[in-house]
Amino acid sequence: MRIIRFEDQAGQTQWGIPVSAGMAELLAGPDIFELRPTGQRIKVSHLLAPFEPRNIFCIGLNYRNHAKETKAEIPSQPVVFMKPTSALNHPGRPIRIPACCNHGPEVDYEGELAVVIGRRTRNVAPSQALGHIFGYTAAIDVSARRWQKSAGGGQWIRGKGFDTFCPLGPMLVTADQIPDPQNLRLTTTLNNQVMQDSNTSDMIFPVAELVSFLSMDTTLLPGTVILTGTPEGVGFVRQPPVFLKPGDELSVEIDGIGRLSCPVEAG
Amino acid sequence: MRIIRFEDQAGQTQWGIPVSAGMAELLAGPDIFELRPTGQRIKVSHLLAPFEPRNIFCIGLNYRNHAKETKAEIPSQPVVFMKPTSALNHPGRPIRIPACCNHGPEVDYEGELAVVIGRRTRNVAPSQALGHIFGYTAAIDVSARRWQKSAGGGQWIRGKGFDTFCPLGPMLVTADQIPDPQNLRLTTTLNNQVMQDSNTSDMIFPVAELVSFLSMDTTLLPGTVILTGTPEGVGFVRQPPVFLKPGDELSVEIDGIGRLSCPVEAG
Repeated sequence: MRIIRFEDQAGQTQWGIPVSAGMAELLAGPDIFELRPTGQRIKVSHLLAPFEPRNIFCIGLNYRNHAKETKAEIPSQPVVFMKPTSALNHPGRPIRIPACCNHGPEVDYEGELAVVIGRRTRNVAPSQALGHIFGYTAAIDVSARRWQKSAGGGQWIRGKGFDTFCPLGPMLVTADQIPDPQNLRLTTTLNNQVMQDSNTSDMIFPVAELVSFLSMDTTLLPGTVILTGTPEGVGFVRQPPVFLKPGDELSVEIDGIGRLSCPVEAG
Repeated sequence: MRIIRFEDQAGQTQWGIPVSAGMAELLAGPDIFELRPTGQRIKVSHLLAPFEPRNIFCIGLNYRNHAKETKAEIPSQPVVFMKPTSALNHPGRPIRIPACCNHGPEVDYEGELAVVIGRRTRNVAPSQALGHIFGYTAAIDVSARRWQKSAGGGQWIRGKGFDTFCPLGPMLVTADQIPDPQNLRLTTTLNNQVMQDSNTSDMIFPVAELVSFLSMDTTLLPGTVILTGTPEGVGFVRQPPVFLKPGDELSVEIDGIGRLSCPVEAG
């Protein structure tokens, strides 16, 4: 199933299956995990992130060619950080350059495949891990590089957690539609220029290993989101560096999932 | 008001004001922020953390003497990390040594003052920040040192985020009862031996500055918890080092707030 969440014309939050431009078939249910089709068609007023995450885990340096471009060693185990749920942003809503990022341009894009956990998961083996995934969506791990590095005391949270720094959606594609999450092309486009063009086959730790690693002695609650890392082509390693600025339009597109686009505005 | 959350004898989750050993005056309301006394007395079956946090922010190296004992430089800005909400633990419930911490003892205690945000807070000045705090409670920032350092790729989440690694409570003391959060004695006791005995006056960044800093271009949702850092006396810097082991009993006591105790068990 391909699920979107949106506000309808009455301002109500709804889930649906997109059927044509601006129209969806209404889905009914208590949460995203238990939706059933109603047959009713409804107009989409504007898109929302597909649900409200419980916890947002992120993986750093998880694509071989991205580790290379940043001159980082290939990690021997996944590097885990988090974003606060307050960083959630909706498709089409602006990524805002925080006022505290006014020391010079530093806000960067990272297009990512996001995994949504569907049921309580703890100590799951890699061979069983994909069965705990409800679905997949697109994400942008917006990153303020000065805060991530020098100003954050070495911890990435501060530079990765500002408001609007976690656009998610719009399409939540259930896991049965993505038989192999390690063969998905991912492209990031900034103002019509392709900045990242890679494939999830370049991941150092595939999705099944990430879920297993994160679940080690740790309960992944339903609605936990995992941002699985970004491929090569980020802005700060380019010559000259590329950073987001007001007026930009940023998109991430993943094969079989869809396209997540956000404008960039001043904070 | 001094608030506890607990299961009553019917297994229902309740809030109340403790009145005597094992008894509370029942509080009624939709959430912890809008409770009103009912006059009804009720038996406490067992204590719970005072509420379910939205996001758990933590501050590293925020006491001068703790920075010294770890031979770290005094940070020029707060060092921020997070715990997943799945790490929440309840008073009296065991801290479990994770199976993945079997490379040798590494699980350490950090007694901390925890701050609970009461309303949406964004870009609040330090002078106004205390007014956004609903209350204070006690916390333990349980920390697996090998995972925090070498095995975590430099990011602290993995070593700080295992299940049971965030005991919280039992007493939530509303902010009106704590006129000066920078003058609270904090002691941590392990098996009746005092391991940490300090005062929040040793904080490098006081509570008001932490709330202001965290709210910078970042919305702190009601129910956000901030663990404000630990004073000197942690286990891993001792000679010989002290780590938690099954059978231990750990307590953190904060002046005017109360005592949080948890046994330690194998995971």
